[in-house]
Amino acid sequence: MAAEIVNPRSDSSTGHEGAEEPFDPAFALHRGGKMAVQATVPVRDKDDLSLAYTPGVAKVCTAIAEQPELVNDYTWKSNVVAVVTDGTAVLGLGDIGPEASLPVMEGKAILFKQFGGVDAVPIALATTDADEIVETVVRMAPSFGGVNLEDISAPRCFEIERKLQERLDIPVFHDDQHGTAVVTLAALRNAARLTGRTLGELRAVISGAGAAGVAIAKFLLEAGLGDVAVADRKGVVSRDRDDLTPVKRELAEITNKAGLSGSLESALSGADVFIGVSGGTVPEPAVASMAPNSFVFAMANPNPEVHPDIAHKYAAVVATGRSDYPNQINNVLAFPGIFAGALQVRASRITETMKIAAAEALAGVVGDELSADYVIPSPFDERVAPAVTAAVAAAARAEGVARR
Amino acid sequence: MAAEIVNPRSDSSTGHEGAEEPFDPAFALHRGGKMAVQATVPVRDKDDLSLAYTPGVAKVCTAIAEQPELVNDYTWKSNVVAVVTDGTAVLGLGDIGPEASLPVMEGKAILFKQFGGVDAVPIALATTDADEIVETVVRMAPSFGGVNLEDISAPRCFEIERKLQERLDIPVFHDDQHGTAVVTLAALRNAARLTGRTLGELRAVISGAGAAGVAIAKFLLEAGLGDVAVADRKGVVSRDRDDLTPVKRELAEITNKAGLSGSLESALSGADVFIGVSGGTVPEPAVASMAPNSFVFAMANPNPEVHPDIAHKYAAVVATGRSDYPNQINNVLAFPGIFAGALQVRASRITETMKIAAAEALAGVVGDELSADYVIPSPFDERVAPAVTAAVAAAARAEGVARR
Repeated sequence: MAAEIVNPRSDSSTGHEGAEEPFDPAFALHRGGKMAVQATVPVRDKDDLSLAYTPGVAKVCTAIAEQPELVNDYTWKSNVVAVVTDGTAVLGLGDIGPEASLPVMEGKAILFKQFGGVDAVPIALATTDADEIVETVVRMAPSFGGVNLEDISAPRCFEIERKLQERLDIPVFHDDQHGTAVVTLAALRNAARLTGRTLGELRAVISGAGAAGVAIAKFLLEAGLGDVAVADRKGVVSRDRDDLTPVKRELAEITNKAGLSGSLESALSGADVFIGVSGGTVPEPAVASMAPNSFVFAMANPNPEVHPDIAHKYAAVVATGRSDYPNQINNVLAFPGIFAGALQVRASRITETMKIAAAEALAGVVGDELSADYVIPSPFDERVAPAVTAAVAAAARAEGVARR
Repeated sequence: MAAEIVNPRSDSSTGHEGAEEPFDPAFALHRGGKMAVQATVPVRDKDDLSLAYTPGVAKVCTAIAEQPELVNDYTWKSNVVAVVTDGTAVLGLGDIGPEASLPVMEGKAILFKQFGGVDAVPIALATTDADEIVETVVRMAPSFGGVNLEDISAPRCFEIERKLQERLDIPVFHDDQHGTAVVTLAALRNAARLTGRTLGELRAVISGAGAAGVAIAKFLLEAGLGDVAVADRKGVVSRDRDDLTPVKRELAEITNKAGLSGSLESALSGADVFIGVSGGTVPEPAVASMAPNSFVFAMANPNPEVHPDIAHKYAAVVATGRSDYPNQINNVLAFPGIFAGALQVRASRITETMKIAAAEALAGVVGDELSADYVIPSPFDERVAPAVTAAVAAAARAEGVARR
């Protein structure tokens, strides 16, 4: 699965005489970037050149012109994903622009390769206009087998994803939404199994109504959770509020069956699950007020909404977004395998069923080793990506969106 | 210079049961595409991940947000070129669309890597509207260190290149124009040297007023050629014609000092140089009517405008676009080194001076081995790309367009 590391950049000059370079291993590692292109066929002599380029290549072009789907067989298209951002919601840094987002997009690209065997290309756009982003991606789509939207701020991310999915016949997936949702569901399934409950018995409260919060809420309901309430800075998203954006208004319709209103803290009283994707801090008494055997998934980075030491005083299962605590909710558990599976069968899109299959496969890797500190596997567990890939490919076939 | 070939695609299933696959080594070689992405940093464990991705990457993003030019030091941007096409003028195949053009763009990308050490990404666009192409490339430009326009039909290619050069501060280079012009000039310099003449003594006739013909004409004049006339299907482009496009009207102003009109054949009478970039055939009597010690560069592929056997009866130097005859005028001699040199010094554009420096360096590789069958080096001569790279970088510095 893992790609080999070759050809590290040898050019170590900075070209910025006088520019301060902080001494830091992260800067040292990033010098020259983290990725490169490689030829997978030889170009050693005239004969090689006449096959890989003119005149040999002309036959391949002609064949594709006559039978367009052959582009997937005879180019890298069917294995390459555009990692598209506008740089508006990068990590916890916010709107730092396209250039400054590139190290994250490159990081994403090498994770695609390393964990999913998927080629990925960072495309950071010099526009934040939703329609311009959509047009740009539609125009470049012939070159790609899929589109991973990344670090685009809400609510534009919802509109951009929806419009692209309508216009393209390749998978379009906003990882900040769905990757997070898939991994959360996987952890939740295992936490429920550990405590002998079904998803239908659980009531969850999500802190944060941005890309991740909205997607997790919808996905957990899709997967059969008993009830989900979402809180933004002004409290629980409920039908009686008159300050809701269109996205939150839709959320108010489908979530919060219990009809809660008021603060996040009050909503937590008696809740089974806390899911934090907001930053901010949840006071300890609110955590203490949750139902017995609760789950606290405090995923804000670097500072979880509830410190794990506090959470452990009350909760049966604690997960965070950090790699230095058990149960890390990390998107890299999902997106490489989801795209690898979708690309393998040339799925036209990534459906809810495929995402639920991914979450189940991910949860399944834990198997009999399930414990409070092990509801989700490590990103470096080599069983993860193959399991997710196979499950997603099978689900795509079963649902009829596969094209091979 | 040459990159290593690793990880050839192992997946050899077609997924197109029932689709006919011609048995052909070109198809076999193209299966799965010709390129891949690779990580150049390790992602083996948690520590690697925390440097290459979160949280370590955040510091690098922040540094770039504060000091934007650092994007060139800490991402692959400064070594990656977008190979952009709309699929309208692909090889001799014409307007075959973006998907069918991808094998050529991938071929170009691996030549960039193999010969210039430059990473390149195929971007085949689903629009042929010049303004839409310009907007699209401008929006994706933050991700790239340069733009190589490829196989875009005339006259849109001229407008697209000009507008992109106006709007971007990275090199934008339409290889079908300038790559061909640079290699042609290199061959012409050596042919002149071989026959003891200066460029100023030469009168050339170019057959073809498309992208290559127009660019060669302008570039040869820039380099000091005595006179150049260009012929399209209706004959010599001259001021007295009333059927000229704006591009050809401009050409009529700057070329054809001799004031020729009429057919290509009549213009060849007494000419020193024939340059064919048109297809079509030049009748033998017209070749015979050229001046003594003439040069015939018949570059149409696969059928040169003058067969080399005929050309050799009259000309002192014969060149073609084919690899199975001596003196192959092949763009791969120029574009990898031109971009490598421009990127090395982070040039804001590729100037006429840089292109002339590239041609001189390319001609210089031939050195004392100069002969009628060796006016231009082989694409596989390992001295070529380093010589062109160094000359282009030096010229960029001298001209003040370098940023390091």
